[in-house]
Amino acid sequence: MGPTRPQEAIEHIDEVQNEIDRLNEQASEEILKVEQKYNKLRQPFFQKRSELIAKIPNFWVTTFVNHPQVSALLGEEDEEALHYLTRVEVTEFEDIKSGYRIDFYFDENPYFENKVLSKEFHLNESGDPSSKSTEIKWKSGKDLTKRSSQTQNKASRKRQHEEPESFFTWFTDHSDAGADELGEVIKDDIWPNPLQYYLVPDMDDEEGEGEEDDDDDEEEEGLEDIDEEGDEDEGEEDEDDDEGEEGEEDEGEDD
Amino acid sequence: MGPTRPQEAIEHIDEVQNEIDRLNEQASEEILKVEQKYNKLRQPFFQKRSELIAKIPNFWVTTFVNHPQVSALLGEEDEEALHYLTRVEVTEFEDIKSGYRIDFYFDENPYFENKVLSKEFHLNESGDPSSKSTEIKWKSGKDLTKRSSQTQNKASRKRQHEEPESFFTWFTDHSDAGADELGEVIKDDIWPNPLQYYLVPDMDDEEGEGEEDDDDDEEEEGLEDIDEEGDEDEGEEDEDDDEGEEGEEDEGEDD
Repeated sequence: MGPTRPQEAIEHIDEVQNEIDRLNEQASEEILKVEQKYNKLRQPFFQKRSELIAKIPNFWVTTFVNHPQVSALLGEEDEEALHYLTRVEVTEFEDIKSGYRIDFYFDENPYFENKVLSKEFHLNESGDPSSKSTEIKWKSGKDLTKRSSQTQNKASRKRQHEEPESFFTWFTDHSDAGADELGEVIKDDIWPNPLQYYLVPDMDDEEGEGEEDDDDDEEEEGLEDIDEEGDEDEGEEDEDDDEGEEGEEDEGEDD
Repeated sequence: MGPTRPQEAIEHIDEVQNEIDRLNEQASEEILKVEQKYNKLRQPFFQKRSELIAKIPNFWVTTFVNHPQVSALLGEEDEEALHYLTRVEVTEFEDIKSGYRIDFYFDENPYFENKVLSKEFHLNESGDPSSKSTEIKWKSGKDLTKRSSQTQNKASRKRQHEEPESFFTWFTDHSDAGADELGEVIKDDIWPNPLQYYLVPDMDDEEGEGEEDDDDDEEEEGLEDIDEEGDEDEGEEDEDDDEGEEGEEDEGEDD
């Protein structure tokens, strides 16, 4: 672009850039180690929490129904089926960047044979995000993903348009593994503190004005409620920032 | 929701949750320390890089013109003025969460008196994001933010509609300090490795099809470019998801 283009300076910049990139990689590795350390430290508490949650009937179905984004995915029969959900576990893999898995443990139920349904997100060989799930072994005539819309009483649900047929279609949908919305809501929003959703009913349902309310309001109310619980959430959000963004400010490039 | 609601279990969950939250805070603090350590370690290399860049005429204007998102903001006279830009510095504050500043150093030039233009992003007293900038002391008749559209040859630019009048309006625009797009592009995309943009001309310009492209396509190309650089942006999008999107619809209507 300029009259002269000092090739030498460019080569030096490139060398310096390599040093910066090396430091970025070191920083990423060190941060990963911190995350892994705390993942281990958190583990016994998650374990304990799961045991306590198991003592509360319908904890998970209530939590999902109270969560504005998840509840929008629930058909009426989904809710029935989720009453048998006793345990949810989120596992981040040792190399956190490579993915996570969500396990749903079910009691014996009229809908499917599986005791556990899992969905797993990871980077495949070529480094692209992909996901895989347990195949659901539906009992005869009970496949909720094949319900026609009149079977589920959609008129009673908040969203009557273009809603997926069932929560359980999520287990067969691998179209957006890099940014699976339900997966990320469970991992980043519910799993860090499910109790807050269990305890606080969705405002829309309470006020019975779900149809009129626009979604922005609803979400904002939800967030305010969370903040009122205490300042734990601030810490969590920070933590999420750090984990999820691979250090957007810290180190430019991870590769 | 269940027939009994074991208050005791809930209280225990709450205690366990407090332990988890404490660990989250500790993890955040430890990660912040790592980031600060590496920020210090990177500093001399950034310094060296700036000195080398200063030896290359028009490095920054070329870099900006080659960057798809930034070039879209450049009027013709902006480019003229940016030929006097000799040095760009991004500083993340000691407490990284609290913000960053971008300094633009200019040679003596026909447009304004300032030697340095800065824009700074930080959280204000109430914790909300805000920004402030140097007031540009335009020389008489040279205020590029007050150019009428016929003065700048917009027909030659990619964006012909609703384009801000000038790159320099950015210094007076504090409307979106929490997600300032140009600020974040410079901090997260250009600053980590400006050489790559200096060396690689914008594809659109190369193919001479800038005019036909609609803005969405262009923007997507821009984002894809960024994604290839590393996964910072994925993290950022996640972050945005949590904050901004209400989510329900996306889940249903994405596909």
